[in-house]
Amino acid sequence: MTATPLRIGLLGHGTVGGAFAALLDERADEIERFNGRRPVITGVLTRSRGSFEQVLADSDLIVELIGGVSPAREYVLQAMRSGRDVVSANKQLISQHGEELFALAREQDVRLRFEAAVAGAVPIVRLLEESLAATPIERVHGIVNGTTNYILSEMARGSDYSEALSEAQRRGYAEADPSDDVSGRDAAAKMAILARLAFGAPVHLDDVPYEGIEHLRLQDMEYARELGLGLKLIGAAERRDGGLSVRVHPAFLYAGHPLSSVSGPFNAVTVESDTITEITMSGPGAGGLQTASAVLGDVVSVMTGGARPPAEPLDFHLLEDVASAFYLHLDVLDRPGVLADVTRVLGEHEVSIRSFVQRGTGDGARLVMVTHAVPESRLRAAIAGLREFEFVRSAPRTIRVIEEEFG
Amino acid sequence: MTATPLRIGLLGHGTVGGAFAALLDERADEIERFNGRRPVITGVLTRSRGSFEQVLADSDLIVELIGGVSPAREYVLQAMRSGRDVVSANKQLISQHGEELFALAREQDVRLRFEAAVAGAVPIVRLLEESLAATPIERVHGIVNGTTNYILSEMARGSDYSEALSEAQRRGYAEADPSDDVSGRDAAAKMAILARLAFGAPVHLDDVPYEGIEHLRLQDMEYARELGLGLKLIGAAERRDGGLSVRVHPAFLYAGHPLSSVSGPFNAVTVESDTITEITMSGPGAGGLQTASAVLGDVVSVMTGGARPPAEPLDFHLLEDVASAFYLHLDVLDRPGVLADVTRVLGEHEVSIRSFVQRGTGDGARLVMVTHAVPESRLRAAIAGLREFEFVRSAPRTIRVIEEEFG
Repeated sequence: MTATPLRIGLLGHGTVGGAFAALLDERADEIERFNGRRPVITGVLTRSRGSFEQVLADSDLIVELIGGVSPAREYVLQAMRSGRDVVSANKQLISQHGEELFALAREQDVRLRFEAAVAGAVPIVRLLEESLAATPIERVHGIVNGTTNYILSEMARGSDYSEALSEAQRRGYAEADPSDDVSGRDAAAKMAILARLAFGAPVHLDDVPYEGIEHLRLQDMEYARELGLGLKLIGAAERRDGGLSVRVHPAFLYAGHPLSSVSGPFNAVTVESDTITEITMSGPGAGGLQTASAVLGDVVSVMTGGARPPAEPLDFHLLEDVASAFYLHLDVLDRPGVLADVTRVLGEHEVSIRSFVQRGTGDGARLVMVTHAVPESRLRAAIAGLREFEFVRSAPRTIRVIEEEFG
Repeated sequence: MTATPLRIGLLGHGTVGGAFAALLDERADEIERFNGRRPVITGVLTRSRGSFEQVLADSDLIVELIGGVSPAREYVLQAMRSGRDVVSANKQLISQHGEELFALAREQDVRLRFEAAVAGAVPIVRLLEESLAATPIERVHGIVNGTTNYILSEMARGSDYSEALSEAQRRGYAEADPSDDVSGRDAAAKMAILARLAFGAPVHLDDVPYEGIEHLRLQDMEYARELGLGLKLIGAAERRDGGLSVRVHPAFLYAGHPLSSVSGPFNAVTVESDTITEITMSGPGAGGLQTASAVLGDVVSVMTGGARPPAEPLDFHLLEDVASAFYLHLDVLDRPGVLADVTRVLGEHEVSIRSFVQRGTGDGARLVMVTHAVPESRLRAAIAGLREFEFVRSAPRTIRVIEEEFG
């Protein structure tokens, strides 16, 4: 006797949907051999084809690959209300409506899996939900956007921002409209999801301050190289001072930092806890095949039981003002007393300087400093003070510096 | 109404057992909140305390942390026959009796989880069993023994083998009797398990050829440094020429290789497939706390359904003779005609030389070569030929060189 097949209703049939259907076809025998049940696609909904009601009626599990919030949210809610398990690759949806979805999944006792929403084929969701379910986590941080990591890798090799972006688009690593990636918003959505899983905190995308890479200059990369620093877009979620800080921003990393060697369109995430020290996972960022593989892994996870939806959220105090070391770049008119004025204003705001270099002379002079750790609010106040001076010729630029050495 | 607790029978209460009991205590509230069921230890069996029958009778799940084959095997079989799920950290048991255990687990429809048997807190078992269940894997390779990686890291910094081993013992990274680690046997057991999971092949520990690190000399590390190579103990399991190769041996890695930067008592495993390109996971090798954390993760996995035991094994042809580039070190008497004789013998066995260097003169002369890829059998035949020469003063030494560049 053969077990009844697992009927899958597929919402969306673009790059990822097509790759998923092809991969499922290729792997169905193996999955059946392993799990005793064969997954089959029994309905497909695209913009121009199929009816959601029909796809739902014919399925045991819904795979949502439409993306965006609406109508994905309505479909997923309706599927769970009808007792279906759901697999989604939709980071917008989970990072903005996670609590509503998780609550319904708990209430209906259905599975809601979303590995592909975070780091493509790198199974960080599963690591947090399952392997580390028994571990108190201190920090999750890493590179969670392959597009920007590719662009920064190209810039480190001498391309300027717009060249690197064009090359990323030509290779299919960046969308025609790259703003979600380069603004840091995509990474912020992923960090909101990771913070929820690691700390149980109901972090919404809107709660995550993010800064992108559009404002970075080749000049910054050159200083970085001279100082032996790498420049990466870093997402971090960590316990600090009794609260939780979740954020996305570019950061200079020391050469020995494990994330500084991650080049190209790759993702890498490190999870730290007192129990396990740290675990790092790395692999290609989202591409069609990688995402499809993560989605199919979630389907198999549902077949074998898999993890329950996240438990009820815990209360957390989200910190807004986190201390960090900063790289500070000032274009100034080179004349006597400038340095004294700058250091006096920084001192008044208790910003202390760790290293300092002056480049150029006359109109083209630049002061480049690295500060000791200082709360961001205090640095911003100091910068507001500096902008009062008429010898400061353009808006000062700041980039965080991650000082710690790891593993 | 509260769900009944999950009753755990704990076999073994040494370092890992003690850490497991303490961690369970600390995390029980959180696990109950998440899974709706509380795990509690209802019986403990040690060498001097408790009866297995009583521990079994009082439990829903058995955690086996005794190690070794007997009586662990009998206990685990009996537990599964009585319908208990089992979590084990025992690599000897799984790598030598895996098929018997997996068959019984399938027959009894119980879970058998063994994350902690392979790479401590690095969840490589789960990655293969669950996340990549839907992915055809080409290769799994990496550093799966933290003790030897620590020793090699110390040697790379200038310690000789015995100094590095003593330091490893002093820090608790190596046992008083380190032979299982330094001989490569521990890594071989782990690779047998990984090969089973990645390829479905019933690989027994005895099927895995292994070579350890005891014969490595500081001299080899010095050449490595000069050539920009790192020296690591590498486990590999890969599809090749229609068969499967599973093996453990030291290898020189180019500086850009992702495994060459893994230092200290750490593990790192890379999984490669056409679908996902590659995923690398790294973290601390087994320590008491890390192992306990992996065991508790497995307990949670059983509570939530988790993966089924591996399906029936597939037939595979295990390759014994795999091609590789080799570093070849010869102590010779420096006199005319030596190089001509050496290259002639290598040529007769179709071993071609990629780079060559002579060091020292007179009695202390050494020829150091790196070959192009050559089947190991052919290199061994060439070496047998070289040993016939009376100018070859000691047994030639060989170390594999991994030529490919990754990521």
